[in-house]
Amino acid sequence: MTIEVDYRFPPNINAEKQAKTIAVGQTAGTWNANFSHRETQFKQHLGQVISIETDSQGYNIARIHFPELNVENDIPSLLTMIFGKYSMAGMGKVIGVHLPQHYGTRPKFGITGIRQLLGVYDRPLIMAIFKPALGLSAADHGVILEQVANAGLDLIKDDEILGNLAVAPTLKRLECCRKVLETVKENTGKTVLYATNVTGKGYQVLETAKLLVKEGANALLLNVLTYGFSVLEMLANDPEINVPIFAHPAFAGAMCAASETGLSYSVVLGTLMAYSGADAVLYPAHYGSLPFEVTEENKIKEILRSRNVFPVPSAGIRPEIVPQLLADYGTEVVLNSGTGIMDHPDGPASGVKAFFDRLLA
Amino acid sequence: MTIEVDYRFPPNINAEKQAKTIAVGQTAGTWNANFSHRETQFKQHLGQVISIETDSQGYNIARIHFPELNVENDIPSLLTMIFGKYSMAGMGKVIGVHLPQHYGTRPKFGITGIRQLLGVYDRPLIMAIFKPALGLSAADHGVILEQVANAGLDLIKDDEILGNLAVAPTLKRLECCRKVLETVKENTGKTVLYATNVTGKGYQVLETAKLLVKEGANALLLNVLTYGFSVLEMLANDPEINVPIFAHPAFAGAMCAASETGLSYSVVLGTLMAYSGADAVLYPAHYGSLPFEVTEENKIKEILRSRNVFPVPSAGIRPEIVPQLLADYGTEVVLNSGTGIMDHPDGPASGVKAFFDRLLA
Repeated sequence: MTIEVDYRFPPNINAEKQAKTIAVGQTAGTWNANFSHRETQFKQHLGQVISIETDSQGYNIARIHFPELNVENDIPSLLTMIFGKYSMAGMGKVIGVHLPQHYGTRPKFGITGIRQLLGVYDRPLIMAIFKPALGLSAADHGVILEQVANAGLDLIKDDEILGNLAVAPTLKRLECCRKVLETVKENTGKTVLYATNVTGKGYQVLETAKLLVKEGANALLLNVLTYGFSVLEMLANDPEINVPIFAHPAFAGAMCAASETGLSYSVVLGTLMAYSGADAVLYPAHYGSLPFEVTEENKIKEILRSRNVFPVPSAGIRPEIVPQLLADYGTEVVLNSGTGIMDHPDGPASGVKAFFDRLLA
Repeated sequence: MTIEVDYRFPPNINAEKQAKTIAVGQTAGTWNANFSHRETQFKQHLGQVISIETDSQGYNIARIHFPELNVENDIPSLLTMIFGKYSMAGMGKVIGVHLPQHYGTRPKFGITGIRQLLGVYDRPLIMAIFKPALGLSAADHGVILEQVANAGLDLIKDDEILGNLAVAPTLKRLECCRKVLETVKENTGKTVLYATNVTGKGYQVLETAKLLVKEGANALLLNVLTYGFSVLEMLANDPEINVPIFAHPAFAGAMCAASETGLSYSVVLGTLMAYSGADAVLYPAHYGSLPFEVTEENKIKEILRSRNVFPVPSAGIRPEIVPQLLADYGTEVVLNSGTGIMDHPDGPASGVKAFFDRLLA
């Protein structure tokens, strides 16, 4: 029954002073004699500095305890408390958030649920992305899906920047793709999940998600960080949304790329996603061109798995490195390949086959 | 009919290469001969590098044009496009977003509407914050409000970290405060707005907002950046939410405090808030202890005013500096004072009077 947060401060910052500022300033604040009658209550809301440790680079890491009665069992109120006003002090970075297991929202499906939907239990899942990102028609999506689904693909997703646009409206994409998936199921018995990108202005995002599920979407994709954790929690807690939700990391760099401010990638793409109801979370793999550390990537993977959330490393995932991927990740993982499948010299179907040839070798 | 975004790159980064990466990679992406039949369509979705200029510190600023047909007239789809995946490249900072006036959501009230509600047209408005932040009862809130409202205060808000907590449930705070405000109105004819903090897990946040308005809330406070721009758009576009929405900047530092990554404060607290339906936006004033630049603060103020959104500088706002505040801000501003009012040696009412004594001098 406790919330603990690790803040990392550069050597030139008085970590003890800052930690106290956070423990008090982000909770009850200070009070004067006029409010002495409420002192017992104020004290219950105060944060506490648990420890301050110095790392090998001379950075100080302060661990602060926050009372759970200050927050509402969700991610937005948690973020407001642990880093709301203080984020603007520009002094430190949140590198760890430790929550009780009962906190937040659990995935409806997660690793075990997605495996059950697909009937695949003993190997990494293979996921593709529709490419090019913008400019294909809904019918083009169906044609591509036919190729990769018949080649044995497990999952496919929209590109995260493809919303409900005139060139390929979301419902039309779903319609074209659903027909293909039904045929594949009839012919081969195989289920393929298509994570349809949920977008829409304000309330439309929830309405759209419900409509998509009603119209046969068997998975959803959400840009959690541009729409808000509240939107993920909205979908994850809605009984009508009875399909897995894939969380995309778009915009994560805005809050995680700086070394001395913001939050660690493992906090945002690991802990916060795992406690707000995502069933699977995409994040950059260190094989790609994005500057992503292996240690941070491993933390994300472990945090997600600890909540039964599927880790989906993306970037640089190609058939040629499957043995390396198996050695690095094991089997509880979705391997998400964009160009590795879609730009295969012999076409997307060959890209999918190349993955399975190596995976089942 | 155009979206233009300014990205700033440090001297050691090849700005031209990065700008092209953004213009292509954040829009249509690349395509091969298999898709030549869609080439005309792809080209319509591509971004274009308009200019690259070098500033006095040797940083390069690239301006990129994005087609409006790639997005959905809201902030989340805009952020996904302009900085979704690219934010994780860790190369540059978004320092300007230029949107057509018809884009996004306009405030329902804004400066003119809030002034009409209050019947005050010719001076800055004075706003207070309930303090201490956590631990007061709902009745305590009523007692404090009685003091400041009778002293002539225009607006008051919850502390942003005070959600719907057992110690002072939101509906009970509203009930206690509404009674006080009704009495003040009867006795003096003066309307005082109380911006009640809207919180709640997922869908509850919209239900709570509607319930609060139904129960007599005459203004709302939202932590836009922890709940999500989608939630602000949800409230701003809902006809039942017929009261002004005050946007709080909590968490802004997570995406704005770094000098070479993320987004500028003026983009997040200025442009994005002004185009997602906020009626008034709080942001740190340079008088306070937070490291906030005057130039950035001025940009926020001007961007908000250009959309009829009330700028609410906060931090270091005290009665003693009212002449300076008038000189710096003029009258189209809400002066938000936390400790400046609540910690006045003779009590909160004296804090309010101290402001008006100097304001009307």
